[in-house]
Amino acid sequence: MHKRYAFIGAGEGTWRVQWSRAVRGEALAPATHVSVMPVDGPPGGEPVSWRLEGHMSNLRYATRSELTVLRSTQEPLGRPDARCAAMIPIRKSAAWWELAQDERRAIFEETSHHTAIGLAYLPAISRQLYHARDLGQPFDFITWFEYARPHAGEFEELVARLRSSREWDFVDREVDIRLELAA
Amino acid sequence: MHKRYAFIGAGEGTWRVQWSRAVRGEALAPATHVSVMPVDGPPGGEPVSWRLEGHMSNLRYATRSELTVLRSTQEPLGRPDARCAAMIPIRKSAAWWELAQDERRAIFEETSHHTAIGLAYLPAISRQLYHARDLGQPFDFITWFEYARPHAGEFEELVARLRSSREWDFVDREVDIRLELAA
Repeated sequence: MHKRYAFIGAGEGTWRVQWSRAVRGEALAPATHVSVMPVDGPPGGEPVSWRLEGHMSNLRYATRSELTVLRSTQEPLGRPDARCAAMIPIRKSAAWWELAQDERRAIFEETSHHTAIGLAYLPAISRQLYHARDLGQPFDFITWFEYARPHAGEFEELVARLRSSREWDFVDREVDIRLELAA
Repeated sequence: MHKRYAFIGAGEGTWRVQWSRAVRGEALAPATHVSVMPVDGPPGGEPVSWRLEGHMSNLRYATRSELTVLRSTQEPLGRPDARCAAMIPIRKSAAWWELAQDERRAIFEETSHHTAIGLAYLPAISRQLYHARDLGQPFDFITWFEYARPHAGEFEELVARLRSSREWDFVDREVDIRLELAA
């Protein structure tokens, strides 16, 4: 299984950018397409607008009961009818990382209901979290979502609920890129 | 602040190897010396026996009360009288990483008393944890300890207590390298 992926903004690619905006902090350079590929794959020679990396890892906050529900409900990426995607790289503040595990967990779930909110949109919205902070990347996380077009409204609701949570007070950089399959 | 470090086993270096053994799983190649340096430092041209990398990160299990006690009690690395060191790279099993956060925390602290055991040897034994799993390294962690020679017996006791804990049932590779300052 590949664990580490590169996210590449360029003039061509698998996903066509519908729109992109900086929600908080600095934007990414403009790109018309985005591709996601294992970092140990063949290097492409094309000029790119930006390149981010992230890796899949274990979940940091989910309890056993949450994990069991998540695993039994969520769908994988790459479903044929999921032609819409969102890539939302996020950086959290130094204040967040200074918190202890129990404080982060309390904000993440007991206060902000992060997992519970995501669960409400399963299985329609597939998600994958990529960790980037410990790779020295400009974002701490790259969040990736896939869904069929009829669920686009639900996805906007999901994003709005998370952004209005207490947890998001600790987000100090966020870029939102909406994509659709190019082919 | 540097976050990512390389641990280099070679024929010369900052620390002289007193002894090295595989506690569980495969050993590392023999080396007479070990050096620790930031990965963004100047590259050395010398042949090396092995090279591991790890990065400092936030603590994954400590609660606020534990963190407060740790920060007020522990001493940094590099104390002049701390001429003894131990480097113990550790890998945990797939079963560990499949656990949920609350299960890992319960084994780590409520069952195995990992933080509480470490606290009992502060400030004599300085520690630094480097994370390596998400860098695709052969170990998940590189643990590093420094102490003055009169505390060597206490250090052996600390290691023995951790190794006999339930948490250690999930350790599937461990190498133990004891060092003293070369100069």
